[in-house]
Amino acid sequence: MVRVVILGQGYVASIFASGLEKIKAGKIKPYGVPLVDELPIKIKDIEIVGSYDVDKAKVGKDLYDVVRKYDPDAPESLRGTTVRKGIHLESLRNLPLEATGLDDEMSLKEAVERLVSEWKELKPDVFVNVCTTEAFAPFENREELEKAIAEDRKDRLTATQVYVYAAAKYAKETGGAAFVNAIPTLIANDPVYVELAKESNLVVFGDDGATGATPLTADILSHFAQRNRYVRDIAQFNIGGNQDFLALTDKERNKSKEFTKSSIVEDLLGYNAPHYIKPTGFLEPLNDKKFIAMHIEYVSFNNARDEIVVTGRINDSPALAGLLVDLVRLGKIAVDRKEFGTVYEVNAFYMKNPGPKEARNIPRIIAHEKMRMWAGLKPRWL
Amino acid sequence: MVRVVILGQGYVASIFASGLEKIKAGKIKPYGVPLVDELPIKIKDIEIVGSYDVDKAKVGKDLYDVVRKYDPDAPESLRGTTVRKGIHLESLRNLPLEATGLDDEMSLKEAVERLVSEWKELKPDVFVNVCTTEAFAPFENREELEKAIAEDRKDRLTATQVYVYAAAKYAKETGGAAFVNAIPTLIANDPVYVELAKESNLVVFGDDGATGATPLTADILSHFAQRNRYVRDIAQFNIGGNQDFLALTDKERNKSKEFTKSSIVEDLLGYNAPHYIKPTGFLEPLNDKKFIAMHIEYVSFNNARDEIVVTGRINDSPALAGLLVDLVRLGKIAVDRKEFGTVYEVNAFYMKNPGPKEARNIPRIIAHEKMRMWAGLKPRWL
Amino acid sequence: MVRVVILGQGYVASIFASGLEKIKAGKIKPYGVPLVDELPIKIKDIEIVGSYDVDKAKVGKDLYDVVRKYDPDAPESLRGTTVRKGIHLESLRNLPLEATGLDDEMSLKEAVERLVSEWKELKPDVFVNVCTTEAFAPFENREELEKAIAEDRKDRLTATQVYVYAAAKYAKETGGAAFVNAIPTLIANDPVYVELAKESNLVVFGDDGATGATPLTADILSHFAQRNRYVRDIAQFNIGGNQDFLALTDKERNKSKEFTKSSIVEDLLGYNAPHYIKPTGFLEPLNDKKFIAMHIEYVSFNNARDEIVVTGRINDSPALAGLLVDLVRLGKIAVDRKEFGTVYEVNAFYMKNPGPKEARNIPRIIAHEKMRMWAGLKPRWL
Amino acid sequence: MVRVVILGQGYVASIFASGLEKIKAGKIKPYGVPLVDELPIKIKDIEIVGSYDVDKAKVGKDLYDVVRKYDPDAPESLRGTTVRKGIHLESLRNLPLEATGLDDEMSLKEAVERLVSEWKELKPDVFVNVCTTEAFAPFENREELEKAIAEDRKDRLTATQVYVYAAAKYAKETGGAAFVNAIPTLIANDPVYVELAKESNLVVFGDDGATGATPLTADILSHFAQRNRYVRDIAQFNIGGNQDFLALTDKERNKSKEFTKSSIVEDLLGYNAPHYIKPTGFLEPLNDKKFIAMHIEYVSFNNARDEIVVTGRINDSPALAGLLVDLVRLGKIAVDRKEFGTVYEVNAFYMKNPGPKEARNIPRIIAHEKMRMWAGLKPRWL
Repeated sequence: MVRVVILGQGYVASIFASGLEKIKAGKIKPYGVPLVDELPIKIKDIEIVGSYDVDKAKVGKDLYDVVRKYDPDAPESLRGTTVRKGIHLESLRNLPLEATGLDDEMSLKEAVERLVSEWKELKPDVFVNVCTTEAFAPFENREELEKAIAEDRKDRLTATQVYVYAAAKYAKETGGAAFVNAIPTLIANDPVYVELAKESNLVVFGDDGATGATPLTADILSHFAQRNRYVRDIAQFNIGGNQDFLALTDKERNKSKEFTKSSIVEDLLGYNAPHYIKPTGFLEPLNDKKFIAMHIEYVSFNNARDEIVVTGRINDSPALAGLLVDLVRLGKIAVDRKEFGTVYEVNAFYMKNPGPKEARNIPRIIAHEKMRMWAGLKPRWL
Repeated sequence: MVRVVILGQGYVASIFASGLEKIKAGKIKPYGVPLVDELPIKIKDIEIVGSYDVDKAKVGKDLYDVVRKYDPDAPESLRGTTVRKGIHLESLRNLPLEATGLDDEMSLKEAVERLVSEWKELKPDVFVNVCTTEAFAPFENREELEKAIAEDRKDRLTATQVYVYAAAKYAKETGGAAFVNAIPTLIANDPVYVELAKESNLVVFGDDGATGATPLTADILSHFAQRNRYVRDIAQFNIGGNQDFLALTDKERNKSKEFTKSSIVEDLLGYNAPHYIKPTGFLEPLNDKKFIAMHIEYVSFNNARDEIVVTGRINDSPALAGLLVDLVRLGKIAVDRKEFGTVYEVNAFYMKNPGPKEARNIPRIIAHEKMRMWAGLKPRWL
Repeated sequence: MVRVVILGQGYVASIFASGLEKIKAGKIKPYGVPLVDELPIKIKDIEIVGSYDVDKAKVGKDLYDVVRKYDPDAPESLRGTTVRKGIHLESLRNLPLEATGLDDEMSLKEAVERLVSEWKELKPDVFVNVCTTEAFAPFENREELEKAIAEDRKDRLTATQVYVYAAAKYAKETGGAAFVNAIPTLIANDPVYVELAKESNLVVFGDDGATGATPLTADILSHFAQRNRYVRDIAQFNIGGNQDFLALTDKERNKSKEFTKSSIVEDLLGYNAPHYIKPTGFLEPLNDKKFIAMHIEYVSFNNARDEIVVTGRINDSPALAGLLVDLVRLGKIAVDRKEFGTVYEVNAFYMKNPGPKEARNIPRIIAHEKMRMWAGLKPRWL
Repeated sequence: MVRVVILGQGYVASIFASGLEKIKAGKIKPYGVPLVDELPIKIKDIEIVGSYDVDKAKVGKDLYDVVRKYDPDAPESLRGTTVRKGIHLESLRNLPLEATGLDDEMSLKEAVERLVSEWKELKPDVFVNVCTTEAFAPFENREELEKAIAEDRKDRLTATQVYVYAAAKYAKETGGAAFVNAIPTLIANDPVYVELAKESNLVVFGDDGATGATPLTADILSHFAQRNRYVRDIAQFNIGGNQDFLALTDKERNKSKEFTKSSIVEDLLGYNAPHYIKPTGFLEPLNDKKFIAMHIEYVSFNNARDEIVVTGRINDSPALAGLLVDLVRLGKIAVDRKEFGTVYEVNAFYMKNPGPKEARNIPRIIAHEKMRMWAGLKPRWL
């Protein structure tokens, strides 16, 4: 059994909850879940025991009613869990929503205590952080983090940063837990948080779930690298209509994407080919099914010039939600093995910006095999 | 030093010869050559010692003059080799060319003897077969092959099949050689030929050089397979203007492509997703730079439907020519190691239809690592 | 009021029937109907009074039950019309269907009389021919056509050719009717049939409804022509999974597409740029939503080389069905005006191969304006 | 004879000069010139008599040496014209160039007088403005403009605004001239300037030459509009590596693109479909050959959902340069006819933002016919 608490009951979390229930009920196949039921922990063993949000329209509502807004086919079996009030810290600022957070009513210290106390009742094994992309600054040292909490520096901290802090406290007191950070805020890449996790019996996976065009770009670049084709330039656009794309029109938040290892190009090619890779815009009717376009130009043998273009329509939230079905189980496995801190083998396949800080990107096809071996499974092709 | 004899001095062989000379002269970088100069045998060690063709406009001409038709920048250093008359056996039928072959003047047995005797003078280590795609039938047993040669069955054999037969004879008498079969005719996938090779100190690599859209499709399908996305259908078109595309408008030849393991889809996905993958047409102004288009539709988590489209302009001949720079060196290495017969580790990365017959396709990114290890190099990512 | 008889109750006819009912009931908007309700005859004035097919699974069934197989949302208001047995003449040969036609039971002459007699009861104003694409040969003179009917030459005639013959007989006897030929069989482009129509109070619109990529290609080529960009080559692929794509895998039928004015390129550009434009393949899971890909390369000022690629997913049947909503009303208008024979102004916008035989293609954007003027409407942009 | 003065000797002007000479010398065909030699004024009648720039690396240099940087094949016949110092007014700010302008040495009033005096010697019929995209504010009334010049408000005016002012003065004194404004600064769309032009014997064509993806988008949207397909959303990206894309990374300049009638979507469709259409980024190795991508989703008959994607590689400067070959001749024709002010028929085809202010976009295919008629030519299709 894996007991899961969701932080941020938006599109991804709702598709995760809905799809999970449908798979458990045998209504759909577990497509998009990389490890399916190969792990000792099965999909049916996953249970969502709590959910947090700060959107006034969600807090206090039944999970089923929230999920149904994103997936009209949401199963009734989702009923019975009430969405709780979480940490806000301006994480919804500039979005067309009314927000309410614990931090609007109490100090951060009190909010952390409140969360830890609620979690001791809910007994989660794994936290899944799928808040809206935040504008954040990483921490340089432990003291600064502790001080920011102690001094109630609501302008310095983001919801994610407080949630991990609280999760560490909870893990330390209860023996162990895992925190899956699926958004760009640096956690598995912030040495301060990794150290905190190690000391606190916490596993952190992160950062920024590897969905969308980037992992595909990674494998295509590896394909060229292995043939020694010289990549002249890479352009990658994507435009979508869900709240995450809306949030990225906020310049501060968009900057948070810049912390993402832009080294993916250099890591895979061995040189830093000129590239333009960033979320491009918001177009409401596209909704959750974003449009991506990618252009790569390269030099082949005898100085021949080739080019390829990839375009596509990709459902954003399901791509990440499917990975979460693995990540919560791998989180529990890591806790059981007491591999506290972060786990590169997991991050390298599932995350856009695999922690720890000094870790590099490798082709996802190979990362997948290494992750399987870490998980105790036979590699598929090696 | 690797001494190379070319069989079929067309587009690919000419770009191979031209690019090779330019790299050796330091005029261009070895882009498109996967192993660059990592092998103990260096690019500068490769020497083209002979060339065969059956196009009347080429036979008897200096290699430089032939190559210059395909690459106006061909270096003068190509001068000095005369293109010799090879085996025809209708390999140019229906093409707008006048052909002349040894088999037009003598029996196959005599032609084989003539070739072997010429080769004993030229002393090649490696043969590179880049004839025009042939209409062929594989051999079921050794006797049938021997009988076809003995009885001068010019209707039963193709140029490639006779060339390998002659190369085996040459290898047996001289101690060893390698035959790189870069076209679809089954050689490394025909147990009769692999057995013949083993007995004759011959290494055969094949079949059908892995260029164009197929290897990229392979890695993209692997990408989806590793995320357990269910591929609903795959369409892949390509259209070009070089002689190989013209040859494929001949229905008999096109069938030869059908022997190519259509199992690539099933090998990589684990199920046989409906697909349409074949050369589509001839459009002269595209010349050697073909247009490819690929459409893949798949099911993601929670039954979401995604699709991607890949289009591109790819220079056909340089893509294969760059691989040949590795293959001739790997051929020499295999001969030196006395690994006669065929070598799956090499074929799996470099060939569309990797022999031996029972071998399967694996993701190219992983095949690349295994090939490196076979070649005595450190894997890049493993 | 326009009374319509459908010939060939397949995908297109079913979407036409279903969409029409939904629009009449105010359930959906008339998207895809070029003239909406600008004509004096309104959409609500269209009534389907009869339907013919030769698929054993359809003949004798209620229209609603047949339509529902193609559109699960088909409205119940379709109930009440029984699909009648039509002309077969091998029009379903090689397709995985069991067929039954009037011509299996009687001579062609008798079948024609039977149809005319049924139609005198149904009183259609307009016939819509949406049979499966046929393998056909046009007629060279009137005598040959009459003789083929008289001598019961079932091998010489196609279903469409017999239907038009019968419709002409019906029109002559009843004062007037229109025949919309939406498939490639040459009718409006066959002078024999146009002459027959003129003499018989019949209007024929045709041939081959202008859907899919071709009209878009036409406007894109016009765009280049008007800037004097020199088009070097055009490749256009399309692949689909409906019965029409399956039928086109039959070589004989595919030839019927060759009668389509391949002059579209020359008509619009003023020179015959090398091109490859044809239906490419069948891929079942694509169903009615085909995948198209188009590549155009051209020369701009100062000999600059540009290229564009268009790809898309397009619902095949609705595109044609929407045009039919206009065509049946324009057919009635032409009959009322006694413009018997064929009408270029209508064909030039709505048909891939606009009759009469000597007529040329013009940019669709301009054809649209001329069609509006013919229909008595104000042009939109002129 | 048309005597031309160039304002801004960058990429476009250099390709214009180079291509023009090559056409005049019979070295290349006039591809990309819409009206070729149909006009009474022939291509060979165009003569570049002067050129202005503010890049220190260009001012004082021979035109041939400047052009050769953009086109290595520039013909020697360009020799003999020296690039003169023009108006700067920060038009190159934030670009990696050292600039020098008349306005750095004298007041604007003096600079205008200096230009007018130089032009009286050069005797141009037509000015072609192809300065770098500027950050500008349109003028609300004539007084404000006059005052800005009189008071030497260098912060209020852009180079283009001063050039037109000077051209008006020159035209008034000499009897007539034309000013082709190929950049986004509002001139033909600014009533103040149009009024000034009318009073001063000046013809202004503008604004923002219709090149790139937008005119193609316009014709594709018209294609859908005429079939009453409901466009749900439009995304259009483009990325390039020339100085104009670099300039657009400057936020102030990018805003100038916002003055471009965003009404193109509404003008052509009849409703304002949600859209994202703007220059997206700078990627140096793409150089002048930009990459464009466009995604359009629409609703067809029976609520079917279709989508198309257009991608392409388009040479930016030649596309505009080819139009200039027409525009300078049309400018002369308008002057000869004394059609002072602006000419919608010309602007509607050649300009992205056709003046005057209240004018609307129409499909380019139709605009082309109307422009032909204005020019005294027979329409091609009407």
